[in-house]
Amino acid sequence: METNLILQNLSKHIELTDEEKENFCSSLKAKKVKRHQFLGEAGEVSRYQNFVTKGCLRSYYIDENGFEHNVQFAIEDWWIGDMASFLTKKPASLYIEALEDSEVSQLDNPSMEDLYIKIPKLERFFRILLQNAFIAFEQRIISIISKTAEEKYLEFINKYPQLERRLPQIHIASNRYGVSSPPLAAKKHYLWL
Amino acid sequence: METNLILQNLSKHIELTDEEKENFCSSLKAKKVKRHQFLGEAGEVSRYQNFVTKGCLRSYYIDENGFEHNVQFAIEDWWIGDMASFLTKKPASLYIEALEDSEVSQLDNPSMEDLYIKIPKLERFFRILLQNAFIAFEQRIISIISKTAEEKYLEFINKYPQLERRLPQIHIASNRYGVSSPPLAAKKHYLWL
Repeated sequence: METNLILQNLSKHIELTDEEKENFCSSLKAKKVKRHQFLGEAGEVSRYQNFVTKGCLRSYYIDENGFEHNVQFAIEDWWIGDMASFLTKKPASLYIEALEDSEVSQLDNPSMEDLYIKIPKLERFFRILLQNAFIAFEQRIISIISKTAEEKYLEFINKYPQLERRLPQIHIASNRYGVSSPPLAAKKHYLWL
Repeated sequence: METNLILQNLSKHIELTDEEKENFCSSLKAKKVKRHQFLGEAGEVSRYQNFVTKGCLRSYYIDENGFEHNVQFAIEDWWIGDMASFLTKKPASLYIEALEDSEVSQLDNPSMEDLYIKIPKLERFFRILLQNAFIAFEQRIISIISKTAEEKYLEFINKYPQLERRLPQIHIASNRYGVSSPPLAAKKHYLWL
């Protein structure tokens, strides 16, 4: 299993001993997903948080009219999952789909709780990670509620140039996906945005 | 200073010794704000995270057309602030305004970093708090991008009945505030939602 990337990711915020690194890595489960395969589906309990070691994935929500709304994209060195379902063990509301052939390192909830006890430094690591996610979500909420579609598109490609190059344009620039004739209202918004 | 509430808040997730409690509380700064006064303004660096011990506050964003968009509400036992500015020391994008005469316990960033070193258990506390915030933000993003204004309003009052009773209706049910004739587009969205 490729563990260099996740260990580098950890070392950005905490220093682990060799024993702790080994302990951490032994809790990971390697998983490969082909393009368009799912790591998780709405309605099922999401058992894992996924660290991407190769490829590109998205999480999305399907509304009652069948329209898909992207919530998050992830490439190498990013985490993706349905946090609410992972923590509460309730059915997920998000689908997690590979947009390219991908590989992830998975952590399940019992392993994670166990790791927090064995390696308390991980509390700090995930606290910092969640702080960054909090900021990203807060800024995204501000964007969604106050900016035009064009402004949001420009903000997205400025903020995530590495994502823009890899994503099918439809995921960023349209609110629909796999629907041939969306209502006008849906066209007004961008999928990510 | 009222510290019972914040100590109760901490005790939901971690157990502190009397010395640690004292240490934590000595880092807090008590602050009173009258209704319609500000705890922070966009453009200024936001120095504090605020734990509400009395009253009700909101954070909001003003777009380039002068429209206000609420990002968060907070009553007793909740935290509020501009996290991005607090962590990066860049100018805040949010205003934090008291909607009632309010009292908060403030923590500045150097004190917080210092507390993480002195009381590592606080890493766990804030990791869990941020996890919950992550879930709330994720669900809010799903709501904003996929639900109608009516659905979002019902979701809001179901999720936060204690807030709905205390907030001026205009904050929940309209996208404008202090503007006498908003364009039609602004009327379509709810302030919170």
